[in-house]
Amino acid sequence: MTFAELSAVKITPPDAAVYKTAKAKWDALAKPLDGMGDFEELLCKIAAIQGAVIPDLSKKALLIMCADNGIVNEGVSQSTQEVTYDVATLMGQGKSSVGRLTADVPLTIRVFDVGINAKDTPKGVIDKKIRLGTADFLTAPAMSEADCLAAIAVGMEAVKECSEEGISILATGEMGIGNTTTATALLCALTGASVQDCTGRGAGLADAGLKRKIDVISRGLAKYPNMQPFDALCNLGGLDIAALAGVFIGAAKCHIPVVIDGLISAAAALVAERMKPGCRDFYIASHRGRERGMDVALAELSLHPVIHAGLALGEGTGAVMLFPLLDMALSLYTKGTVFGSTPIAQYERFEQ
Amino acid sequence: MTFAELSAVKITPPDAAVYKTAKAKWDALAKPLDGMGDFEELLCKIAAIQGAVIPDLSKKALLIMCADNGIVNEGVSQSTQEVTYDVATLMGQGKSSVGRLTADVPLTIRVFDVGINAKDTPKGVIDKKIRLGTADFLTAPAMSEADCLAAIAVGMEAVKECSEEGISILATGEMGIGNTTTATALLCALTGASVQDCTGRGAGLADAGLKRKIDVISRGLAKYPNMQPFDALCNLGGLDIAALAGVFIGAAKCHIPVVIDGLISAAAALVAERMKPGCRDFYIASHRGRERGMDVALAELSLHPVIHAGLALGEGTGAVMLFPLLDMALSLYTKGTVFGSTPIAQYERFEQ
Repeated sequence: MTFAELSAVKITPPDAAVYKTAKAKWDALAKPLDGMGDFEELLCKIAAIQGAVIPDLSKKALLIMCADNGIVNEGVSQSTQEVTYDVATLMGQGKSSVGRLTADVPLTIRVFDVGINAKDTPKGVIDKKIRLGTADFLTAPAMSEADCLAAIAVGMEAVKECSEEGISILATGEMGIGNTTTATALLCALTGASVQDCTGRGAGLADAGLKRKIDVISRGLAKYPNMQPFDALCNLGGLDIAALAGVFIGAAKCHIPVVIDGLISAAAALVAERMKPGCRDFYIASHRGRERGMDVALAELSLHPVIHAGLALGEGTGAVMLFPLLDMALSLYTKGTVFGSTPIAQYERFEQ
Repeated sequence: MTFAELSAVKITPPDAAVYKTAKAKWDALAKPLDGMGDFEELLCKIAAIQGAVIPDLSKKALLIMCADNGIVNEGVSQSTQEVTYDVATLMGQGKSSVGRLTADVPLTIRVFDVGINAKDTPKGVIDKKIRLGTADFLTAPAMSEADCLAAIAVGMEAVKECSEEGISILATGEMGIGNTTTATALLCALTGASVQDCTGRGAGLADAGLKRKIDVISRGLAKYPNMQPFDALCNLGGLDIAALAGVFIGAAKCHIPVVIDGLISAAAALVAERMKPGCRDFYIASHRGRERGMDVALAELSLHPVIHAGLALGEGTGAVMLFPLLDMALSLYTKGTVFGSTPIAQYERFEQ
């Protein structure tokens, strides 16, 4: 894919009329108005995205992008790059955390190698390797424009395949040692938010590591000032983030609701929105993770996560935990008792 | 049940050793330490309550207490008391909101009439009617001590039956027009929190109604100053709240984890804890509802809800939405890949 081709991608907005009809359907149910709170809005949004008053949540998929980050050379993570390969290996076997978490839940999980720093791709992982990890962004741009576009294309293509298979809702996940650093750098570059405020402990950095991480991100931002979103992604971002940005753009293009997971996924969602305004209308927030930049990223996207559990696992674990909640809300929405069909037409309809 | 019998109920604490073993089991999994955030703590707590390192979540039940409140005479709700009966009728048929929400989820739902203001009890609802609603607490104490004890006994007995059937986790729910008023009054009486800060719009009060509600609660608190918890429950509380307090005490007695729903349930949980200190060790918070007093009630109990969705429906809807999340976390906890069984023993184990 060329930059011109990416620029030419058209995103048509969700169907506002369907949103209104869906909200009226909620309001007709024998319950307090807005009683289901954010879930009412979420299902209306999904309905508008899908262009159908009754949303389809029957076929769900999780797309996980795996890649390594050269910035780990700077000591921003307590883990070594081998862990990316090792966890991807577990993912390919369905034995990683998200596989076990969803063992009893119907869900298609696809894991992509877009840049693990190892010659081969683990079994069960889809080989879309673009390069053996990114460069250390303090030394050189993380990746070339061509590599970045290739990663975006992997994400868009993955969504296209899901769309052709009738997948009705997507979740995003990632694995890549060092990617809270790249995501935080990108987030600060795009929003101007303070590095101090946005930088978290990743998978468990102690104080010295956190200080080093803040310093590395600050130096990265100083090295590449005043960037356009695509340039920020090339210079600071990871291949996993670029591929996830492609998933977000692809989901918007295909009108598939797409669930944001944690900080890395949120940074990818934000860069996608900045490159292709209107993408965010297709986003669903899931959880407020422990990473400090998460609030900044979601606020920029005007999204409110419903799960607040201090999750810090990655792999899409928080995103997929939203699914059973949406399923329950959909059950009420579709099967709920309607005013007028019962003797309780007067139930709390006044003074609104 | 007499007050002396209630006072004699013994609560033995959860098993702290099991908690520690469960936490060690989480820490042994191939994931970032504390990666599952609050869900790690929740499952450890449930394990300690049940006295087993592998918690049992296989048999879930929701206990819903329904009753009317005389305080509606003061214009604190836009709905009339008939709605309590009508919604309980739907509940008995499985057609109310919580029934539809959980239509595809294995769950035992039991609905109790502890004081609906109607001569009969709807079909499918368990008849434990104590009286035809409470008195208007601005005129007279809401209920006698004997009635309050009878309602508490209904809740405790319901839990005992669940325990005998092998129910492993309980959720709480209620229906009763006017019960955000009684719950808020009780909450303020027990904590000294400001009525202004704690009073919410219930199922949708407009500004004039909200002002009236604040005034009514303030007058109620002035009428019954400096009360012991049981007296506060008798004077201000509803029969639904008293019965739910019995559920919380019974759950603590039987070592069954019990999920708090919204404000009414939280007020009942708090009065149970104040009457029988130690009960709260058996409580699980579910959601942060839209009612303003919710934060005060949960803070008093040192609990953090993981669902933040502005729910304001009642019936236990928020409580049961926690169940699939606990199931997913349990799946990871029991089936997760353990360090040492894989090549990734070095995964993020340092600098903690």
